[in-house]
Amino acid sequence: MARYPGLSVPGLLRLSDYVGTASFAVTGSLLAAGVGADLLGCAVIGTTTAVGGGTVRDLLLGNGRRAFWMEEVEYLYISLAAAVAAFLLWPAAERGLGLGLNDAWLEATDALGVGAFCVIGAMNGLRAGVPPVAAVVCGVVTATFGGAIRDVLCERPVRILHSYASMYATAAAGGATIYVLVRLAGLPTPARILAGVFTGMALRAASEHWDLRLPVYDSDTARQTAAAKGDHRGFP
Amino acid sequence: MARYPGLSVPGLLRLSDYVGTASFAVTGSLLAAGVGADLLGCAVIGTTTAVGGGTVRDLLLGNGRRAFWMEEVEYLYISLAAAVAAFLLWPAAERGLGLGLNDAWLEATDALGVGAFCVIGAMNGLRAGVPPVAAVVCGVVTATFGGAIRDVLCERPVRILHSYASMYATAAAGGATIYVLVRLAGLPTPARILAGVFTGMALRAASEHWDLRLPVYDSDTARQTAAAKGDHRGFP
Amino acid sequence: MARYPGLSVPGLLRLSDYVGTASFAVTGSLLAAGVGADLLGCAVIGTTTAVGGGTVRDLLLGNGRRAFWMEEVEYLYISLAAAVAAFLLWPAAERGLGLGLNDAWLEATDALGVGAFCVIGAMNGLRAGVPPVAAVVCGVVTATFGGAIRDVLCERPVRILHSYASMYATAAAGGATIYVLVRLAGLPTPARILAGVFTGMALRAASEHWDLRLPVYDSDTARQTAAAKGDHRGFP
Repeated sequence: MARYPGLSVPGLLRLSDYVGTASFAVTGSLLAAGVGADLLGCAVIGTTTAVGGGTVRDLLLGNGRRAFWMEEVEYLYISLAAAVAAFLLWPAAERGLGLGLNDAWLEATDALGVGAFCVIGAMNGLRAGVPPVAAVVCGVVTATFGGAIRDVLCERPVRILHSYASMYATAAAGGATIYVLVRLAGLPTPARILAGVFTGMALRAASEHWDLRLPVYDSDTARQTAAAKGDHRGFP
Repeated sequence: MARYPGLSVPGLLRLSDYVGTASFAVTGSLLAAGVGADLLGCAVIGTTTAVGGGTVRDLLLGNGRRAFWMEEVEYLYISLAAAVAAFLLWPAAERGLGLGLNDAWLEATDALGVGAFCVIGAMNGLRAGVPPVAAVVCGVVTATFGGAIRDVLCERPVRILHSYASMYATAAAGGATIYVLVRLAGLPTPARILAGVFTGMALRAASEHWDLRLPVYDSDTARQTAAAKGDHRGFP
Repeated sequence: MARYPGLSVPGLLRLSDYVGTASFAVTGSLLAAGVGADLLGCAVIGTTTAVGGGTVRDLLLGNGRRAFWMEEVEYLYISLAAAVAAFLLWPAAERGLGLGLNDAWLEATDALGVGAFCVIGAMNGLRAGVPPVAAVVCGVVTATFGGAIRDVLCERPVRILHSYASMYATAAAGGATIYVLVRLAGLPTPARILAGVFTGMALRAASEHWDLRLPVYDSDTARQTAAAKGDHRGFP
């Protein structure tokens, strides 16, 4: 990947990474605002949503690594700026410009983020020398764990576990797998990147459009099963 | 510990580790299914339950380590296979074979997992050169944090904190402590391993059988205390 | 920072670190007791509250680091002892000595902890060679993530995100920023430490005293926004 955005495919991947980072920070911040977090809380949650997945990937890969945003500080600036701006400007933008959380531009930049994150995660894994299957896990972790941490901190059901809000983790797994396969097939860098990013974005868009869902258990049986295993609280 | 299962004591420890990993993945996956996670969500939760404790231990020990399943990929395969198989086959196995989540074979493999994990964790700590007390913490973390992450992701009360579902963390602490003490006493490897694993399993079985519990606070006072400290939500 | 407490400013910083660690462990343990955790659960939560922030900082800084309490084991002893003592002795102390969770000595030691933790975190960051803004993040993480993990494990709203329980994270951010600025300005070690610790403590005390709060969203709009984004559960 190029160090900075540019017009080559690696440069566009970096640009997509910036755009996805900002988009994740915006939605994370607004979601935190929605559960009553204050300005700093929204900055923390927005930033965690944006850089959390890549951070967990760096911790898992270890080997002397450091959380990437400690050195590539621009990710910290992008995340903080996007999260704070969202908190401060969103109410006015909703009223004045008619923006909404289901707008196509927000869905599109989020999908671009998923595509870029899963490819960059898998790329980091392969470069660190882990086996292909572990590199795919790196891609999934990069694209999804920021959102998972956000959901835990905001006390929401963790989105990546559930199908009701589109096949998020599945899209990341698909994108990362295609990237790794195309790379193992020996195709050049631009082809790998484009194939992975496109697959991730396409799976996400397709699942939204045709309302595709992975199978789940019948919930009544499920509740009894869980209760039998020692959860005396019942489920919502 | 032996690299692969075998008939020596270290080889049996590795085998117990595989069996415990699969058992944790099965129960994690079914618990996630019980709160409405889809197929991929159950694979993620099952795998996290199985390898999460050892992963946190590796992160805490640091010093250039990498999450163990990034290199010993067989743990990833065992976890994913067990979690996916449980999701897909459990309903049929419940009906056709009469299997249940409280079956003795599932309790036994879970207990074997706790015994193996706490010993392996403490062993990793001592080999990394940390003081004995920190090695015991490594054992407890290895045996319990996978389940703790599972409970957080599934929005359940964290089992290791509570006594209502048996003395889980206490069994791990006991097994890890005995392993470290026997090792400090200079006994040979097989004796250390057997003493630690047996202690962990025996404590777990004893707490189930005699319904042993650690002390807790009276909950009414407790709720008021918590409310007074700033929790305006009350407790369930 | 001095390796052990003493009468120099660095030695007093170490002492404040010990006092803050014990104070965090006491309140963490009592909070866990308040949600029904047993003795070992309270020891785990108390210790996590006390050393969790510094641990996350060490993981993020990486580069071969290890969780600090694995080598400076005295932090493990202080945390465990304070958490266990709080669990066992608090009910009697409440009745016999009239102690309470809102006592000034507990607020003061907690504030001392925040001040010391944010300075020590930022100091660790700068010594590790990260840019100033990342060092400030290290300070905030050190002072606040232990409490955040505690809240997640206890299924409470995460305090640092909300303003209803005083400007906790803001105080840490202020203290860490002042420490970094004074250090960049070239002032000697004692001046940096005192400026940072004092700022953190003063911001925390001021927010308590004048009931200062950061802005939050109107919660009705917020709930609808969140629901529109896919949370089908509604918010408490």
